Amino acid sequence: MITMGIRFYNCRILTLKDYNIVWGEVHTDGDKISYVGSEKDAPKDVKFEREINLNGNLIMPSFKNAHTHSAMSFLRSYADDLPLNDWLFQQVFPMEAKLTGDDIYRLAKLSFAEYLTSGITACFDMYFEPDFMARAADETGVRTIMCGSVAGSADECDAALLKLDTLYNKFKNHSEYVSYRLGFHAEYTTDVSIMKGIADLSRKYKQPVYTHNSETASEVQGCKERHNGMTPTELMESLGMFEYGGGGFHCVHMSDKDLGIFKQRGLWAVTNPGSNSKLASGIAPLCRMNETGINLAIGTDGPASNNALDMFREMYLATVLQKLKLDDAAAMPADIVLGMASKGGALAMGLNDCDTIEEGKKADLIVIDLNQPNMQPVNNIVKNIVYSGSKSNIQLTMCNGRVLYEKGEFKTMDIERVYAEAAECTERMKKE
Amino acid sequence: MITMGIRFYNCRILTLKDYNIVWGEVHTDGDKISYVGSEKDAPKDVKFEREINLNGNLIMPSFKNAHTHSAMSFLRSYADDLPLNDWLFQQVFPMEAKLTGDDIYRLAKLSFAEYLTSGITACFDMYFEPDFMARAADETGVRTIMCGSVAGSADECDAALLKLDTLYNKFKNHSEYVSYRLGFHAEYTTDVSIMKGIADLSRKYKQPVYTHNSETASEVQGCKERHNGMTPTELMESLGMFEYGGGGFHCVHMSDKDLGIFKQRGLWAVTNPGSNSKLASGIAPLCRMNETGINLAIGTDGPASNNALDMFREMYLATVLQKLKLDDAAAMPADIVLGMASKGGALAMGLNDCDTIEEGKKADLIVIDLNQPNMQPVNNIVKNIVYSGSKSNIQLTMCNGRVLYEKGEFKTMDIERVYAEAAECTERMKKE
Repeated sequence: MITMGIRFYNCRILTLKDYNIVWGEVHTDGDKISYVGSEKDAPKDVKFEREINLNGNLIMPSFKNAHTHSAMSFLRSYADDLPLNDWLFQQVFPMEAKLTGDDIYRLAKLSFAEYLTSGITACFDMYFEPDFMARAADETGVRTIMCGSVAGSADECDAALLKLDTLYNKFKNHSEYVSYRLGFHAEYTTDVSIMKGIADLSRKYKQPVYTHNSETASEVQGCKERHNGMTPTELMESLGMFEYGGGGFHCVHMSDKDLGIFKQRGLWAVTNPGSNSKLASGIAPLCRMNETGINLAIGTDGPASNNALDMFREMYLATVLQKLKLDDAAAMPADIVLGMASKGGALAMGLNDCDTIEEGKKADLIVIDLNQPNMQPVNNIVKNIVYSGSKSNIQLTMCNGRVLYEKGEFKTMDIERVYAEAAECTERMKKE
Repeated sequence: MITMGIRFYNCRILTLKDYNIVWGEVHTDGDKISYVGSEKDAPKDVKFEREINLNGNLIMPSFKNAHTHSAMSFLRSYADDLPLNDWLFQQVFPMEAKLTGDDIYRLAKLSFAEYLTSGITACFDMYFEPDFMARAADETGVRTIMCGSVAGSADECDAALLKLDTLYNKFKNHSEYVSYRLGFHAEYTTDVSIMKGIADLSRKYKQPVYTHNSETASEVQGCKERHNGMTPTELMESLGMFEYGGGGFHCVHMSDKDLGIFKQRGLWAVTNPGSNSKLASGIAPLCRMNETGINLAIGTDGPASNNALDMFREMYLATVLQKLKLDDAAAMPADIVLGMASKGGALAMGLNDCDTIEEGKKADLIVIDLNQPNMQPVNNIVKNIVYSGSKSNIQLTMCNGRVLYEKGEFKTMDIERVYAEAAECTERMKKE
């Protein structure tokens, strides 16, 4: 008799190796999945720390948030319904200038809590103060892949590259929960000398590069004016930025040539339909990207622009906005979107062992409660999740074999304290 | 000392007489609100059946679902991601033909349960078998205003009008929870002789008339071809349909002349953004309607086409789709949308005493839990509700002074039985 982690039994299982749903059991052992299969074939001489009867509810891989700025929670509902430039320059930037590292730690934890309520166990986060972000991730057990966010003018080139190189090496193997990828803010905030240097770093470390790309039409137009008619994607490709892959956040305004580069380089297009809608940025060409064979994932973007961090909302928008855009109710079927939100996000940020429910993979998984009105009758579970599912259906969220959230309770956070501390630093910044 | 209903105290209160949020108490007495105001001024010599400390959570008028087909829950996730005509003619109509009255009773209850989870206490429902719908409403305590759904050819005119007249008189004062309004399915399914007769009934009873109107571009085009270039709105106006008001469901493809008629007649435009998105019908011109001064409300449409019955989703879509459509992040501010979803819906279906939190109004209200990550920090509660709110924030739903739903529990339904019976009749229809 050996002692192991958790036994989930009486489950519907969606492994996402395919979209079939089977009945059976899932076992965890430490941080890993140790068994997926029928009840009949499950190992019997095992004593579990805990056994959970799912009563037919669904177990599936957790969602992965492939683009966000977690610590921007202080700006939720702070300045909505404004034109984009007023929002950014008059509201967001002045408040951001007042942030301390400790604020970022506190504000990120609030967003991590929200991720868990929506079944998200990992985020690909672009922001400042990585020491404080790493502390929030390690304490709460939410995987946080930090993405380089350097930017600046030609004068700032050496400092920016040194910073990125240093942070990459400091955090790339930081912990089970924290890693780091090469990246920069965006073409429109970053001198070409810095971008060239990042391409060099990419080759030096054989690492992919990620950045905001073609979020707005004016960004693309500005890039063409600055760079001999090249789009952001064309410019970065011309600098050798993508020899080791990587990806773009948003990717709303993409030319056919851009899509060809994404396909050829195996880049990830990370869509953020909630943010792109609220800020009136446009609708990304997801169907065309999918038909082109481009790798797709979904991010919530930060709470300042979305304002929710809810993968159910993002999945729903990822499909219905395509239907509206293309005037075709059959566009962007639910199964593709569900894959983007879970295994797509994992692979986009390099979490290659957190993507499916399989023996030996990390136990990053969720339980979806089907016994709620919005999931009944059970005609088609995958469609139910995408078209009528809600964060209220998230019964349990597990990351790395640990239950982080269950039936409204946060297991690694004093949630009332998280609220109080986030409110405290938000109020302080408003007064400063 | 007198004994009364429920005392909610330590509340934030959004009355929707305006959009200010004040602290205080709300008392109910029977089916009505008996006190709204400060703790200090509240009547003291009262014994309550129950006192609920809201700990700063928000009390506001409940949501009202101004267009739906509740009993279509059997078709949720039954046939998604299909072109509109395949969906309607190959999937929906053949299944609908198998429905019995008892099926409709069971399937409507499933949707009523879903309404309660989303803070909806009333629905404006267009479907068949009003006896069974009324039974579901009376049993569960969810207000159901049934809307006439007649349609047919010239041959069927007399029968259709007799049916509408009979049902109107049978159900107009049926019960506290059930009433009936004149209405018909749509121009494209209804001969002009029937529409003329309904206009006569409208004048006879001095009652408003409601119908599906301009949901798709092809519907409007077809109407113009059938009726000398007139849009559905122009046609109905020419028949004298709107002398006592009424409204249109969907209103996606509206001309300036249509909007002028809606404004002049005081008609309600009921928008259904979830359904219009999923079926690729288009984006209703809500901003233009609002600027024109047209009365606006929100409906979920039925679970076959949405597929969720979630007012939070509809509110979010009602604003962000306008931002996308108009390329303007400032379009359709949150407060307008929140008003549409609550008091707008009430007034659209004639529930004139269920629209605000005021003494003497019906106690149709909800408690919104602000102590969840998606509602923190509390920078702006109205924006939080619309942009990051979720059905998971609905802590309590009250209709007519009765608590129908609280913290996940349904007080007037055996919910497991509702699921089982809805599943049973859905499976039977699939096999038939």
